Amino acid sequence: MAKEVTNRADNYSQWYNDLVVKAGLAENSAVRGCMVIKPYGYAIWEKIQAQLDKMFKETGHVNAYFPLFIPKSFLSKEAEHVEGFAKECAVVTHHRLMNDPNGKGVVVDPEAKLEEELIVRPTSETIIWNTYKGWIQSYRDLPILVNQWANVVRWEMRTRLFLSTAEFLWQEGHTAHATREEAIEETEKMINVYQKFAEEFLAVPVLVGKKTASERFAGAEDTYCIEAMMQDGKALQAGTSHFLGQNFAKAFEVTYLSKEGKQEFVWASSWGVSTRLMGALIMAHSDDNGLVLPPVLAPIQVVIVPIYKGAEELEKISAKANEIKAHLAARGISVKYDDSDNVRSGFKFAEYELKGVPVRLAIGPRDMQNGTVEVARRDTLTKEMKPQEGIVEYVESLLKEIQSTIFAKAEKFRTENTFEVDTYEQFKEQIEKGGFIMAHWDGTPETEEKIKEETKATIRCIPLGGKMEAGKCMVTGKPSAQRVVFARSY
Amino acid sequence: MAKEVTNRADNYSQWYNDLVVKAGLAENSAVRGCMVIKPYGYAIWEKIQAQLDKMFKETGHVNAYFPLFIPKSFLSKEAEHVEGFAKECAVVTHHRLMNDPNGKGVVVDPEAKLEEELIVRPTSETIIWNTYKGWIQSYRDLPILVNQWANVVRWEMRTRLFLSTAEFLWQEGHTAHATREEAIEETEKMINVYQKFAEEFLAVPVLVGKKTASERFAGAEDTYCIEAMMQDGKALQAGTSHFLGQNFAKAFEVTYLSKEGKQEFVWASSWGVSTRLMGALIMAHSDDNGLVLPPVLAPIQVVIVPIYKGAEELEKISAKANEIKAHLAARGISVKYDDSDNVRSGFKFAEYELKGVPVRLAIGPRDMQNGTVEVARRDTLTKEMKPQEGIVEYVESLLKEIQSTIFAKAEKFRTENTFEVDTYEQFKEQIEKGGFIMAHWDGTPETEEKIKEETKATIRCIPLGGKMEAGKCMVTGKPSAQRVVFARSY
Repeated sequence: MAKEVTNRADNYSQWYNDLVVKAGLAENSAVRGCMVIKPYGYAIWEKIQAQLDKMFKETGHVNAYFPLFIPKSFLSKEAEHVEGFAKECAVVTHHRLMNDPNGKGVVVDPEAKLEEELIVRPTSETIIWNTYKGWIQSYRDLPILVNQWANVVRWEMRTRLFLSTAEFLWQEGHTAHATREEAIEETEKMINVYQKFAEEFLAVPVLVGKKTASERFAGAEDTYCIEAMMQDGKALQAGTSHFLGQNFAKAFEVTYLSKEGKQEFVWASSWGVSTRLMGALIMAHSDDNGLVLPPVLAPIQVVIVPIYKGAEELEKISAKANEIKAHLAARGISVKYDDSDNVRSGFKFAEYELKGVPVRLAIGPRDMQNGTVEVARRDTLTKEMKPQEGIVEYVESLLKEIQSTIFAKAEKFRTENTFEVDTYEQFKEQIEKGGFIMAHWDGTPETEEKIKEETKATIRCIPLGGKMEAGKCMVTGKPSAQRVVFARSY
Repeated sequence: MAKEVTNRADNYSQWYNDLVVKAGLAENSAVRGCMVIKPYGYAIWEKIQAQLDKMFKETGHVNAYFPLFIPKSFLSKEAEHVEGFAKECAVVTHHRLMNDPNGKGVVVDPEAKLEEELIVRPTSETIIWNTYKGWIQSYRDLPILVNQWANVVRWEMRTRLFLSTAEFLWQEGHTAHATREEAIEETEKMINVYQKFAEEFLAVPVLVGKKTASERFAGAEDTYCIEAMMQDGKALQAGTSHFLGQNFAKAFEVTYLSKEGKQEFVWASSWGVSTRLMGALIMAHSDDNGLVLPPVLAPIQVVIVPIYKGAEELEKISAKANEIKAHLAARGISVKYDDSDNVRSGFKFAEYELKGVPVRLAIGPRDMQNGTVEVARRDTLTKEMKPQEGIVEYVESLLKEIQSTIFAKAEKFRTENTFEVDTYEQFKEQIEKGGFIMAHWDGTPETEEKIKEETKATIRCIPLGGKMEAGKCMVTGKPSAQRVVFARSY
């Protein structure tokens, strides 16, 4: 039998970890909180990267690369920023090791102490705005629309594969603009790119909204986010886009000469998604048999398994399988033909279910006689017999159907687990059952904090484009302009 | 006029730095030895990455990602390895900052000292072989053919943009095999991939050979390399592939159960190229006017510049230019149409020369009457008039011709600057003039060291596939099986 995965109902958290490890996506490393992204997991990340990179370039952005290290003094230049990141950062203090004078092994060479400590970037606003100072003189140098693919480090105390790791991979866009309006437009444009990506590629429906002041990025005037619902009813923040105002321009003295001949501070946005998206992808769709991958991001979209006894049967089946494989590949579909002979086909079936391969084709001797193929869908776990003739076209359309079915299922789940609640009593009862709760809030950090302390629920976002139904705060009874989204979260 | 670049003849080193900075490829950052790779430079690196990644996948490799940090004790497990890297590594000792109790700003929190220091990876053999221990049980788990795209840090004292920086970007392949023969085959296969890439894409001819024992990678049994000649006659090591024997398998106790049922240590290779390739690319081809980029790696392959007076002329020219641009783009050629109105066309010409755009098309009012285009080649700085009809096909074939002309020019330069020398006197005279010197050497590290001390020349490689002409060491007169390649180097 295939590797055993814990059931969601028994232990959701263990189920998630089992999936990540047993499907070969990632594992913990010898370094606390740092993961190894294994080839199968990295192949999904490469597809995520390629698609996002395409969408960034289509919206006018270019890539660049900035240093891994940030001088300690840079972090301090923006007051809220240092407050947000100082407590969880890796600090480089020395640049050399030496042989241990007292024995074997190596020790830090005390002579090689850095004059100023370097922080391994937790995010790059400071080093980038220090650089932009040299790039920007006049309005003709604006806008700057730059993205960086990089690793960052945040020394979190509790870590979980993909969801929250000390080191993670991400992209961070950092843009510079002549006006406030342009910077806000960019901030909104990018959260919309993230929404489109999440829904069309990850097949995960997301709410788009703004964070409350207390949940904002350290140094931002406004943080926009996309929030997804996981199968345990918890929220997962899947991407953020920040309007930074002139905060970093002021901290690093970045000004430009306007068309009117005046020196003005530059306006900024930053936006990012990370390998956390892998966690969202896994938790949103998978089941007790293993991963369920949306076809557009699956490293293997179709697997063909021969069912045979003896070399002669295999040879005939292989000829047909390879023919189908070639035709699928010609349409840009990635296919694996697994004729390995060291495991039974039942084992293979379970293994590809675990790995979330969207479509499995099985061909046996009877299929060869009848001109048929057994087609199995990973998402619904259903099987059907199909004629070999036309199978390529059928599989191609089936992959599209699976993509939309997976999204529709996740959307239905979210709808069924989103509740409007008007009293704090109802709220406390509902939050124990999970889901998104739409409730009225008086807009104060005090009420927000009280709810968080008493229920562990946070305001995930103030939704954009939702209905602007006025009401009364469920806690204080004070007026509220619209419902906000509460949930427990990852 | 365009930004001034120092002449090669006046100051080669300054010329290189000017080019890198003024063409907008990279610049120094606020962090000692760490560079910012600017969008134009990064666009070239993206093309290098995409092509290499394709070639790695075609040879059966997959990508993965391993931690940025390496526990200090891991480095010590392979004796030569730690010797090679301990003296130039960034050491993380703490995981938190705190507000300075004596004033403003932040300081390292002494309470947050790590139990074991972490090294920012200078290369990943140790963390990867520690991971492979968990991946390999039997011969069925082999080979492992993994590559990683990553940043690494080596705290070099003298740094130069792209050529030698404290942080750089690279790929590192790490493979595991059941037999010595297979690991050697892999090592050789990958140095051949690097050669093919260097010659067909960078348009830089390279010598393939083995390093002498004293120039080997720290922990390798054999290091293969590709060596390129720069325009000042110095050598630049552009890529290496190491046969690691069982050194890392033994250090991390990685064994497998063979088909015959015996526990055996695993055999290894590792291989890498880095952003140093950018340095090779720039120094091999460029001239006093700026960059000369091989068309296959140029972010902009063709620029079209309109020559006009007034809006009416511009409108007609733009219609034609955009038509040509669309047809070129349809053939996968990247084209920029520069109709910006804030600088003169002479300035644009100089700017695109500086940036190394391979082909420039200029269209003026007379061209519109005559149905012609002015075609300028960046590599030869020649211009010719061509009919607009058939221009797309002409430019497409011209780009191919430029690619091979650039390679041929570099190859001719190398041939003219490669010398066979038989006496140490001749050698000392020639090495001052630069170039590769093919000479006999007795095979001892003592003689190698003496030559290095007296002439600053090192053995770049013992060439593979060269003629095996026996002779006598130019220094000691002892027998030598073949000539080796000496040069001063970057």
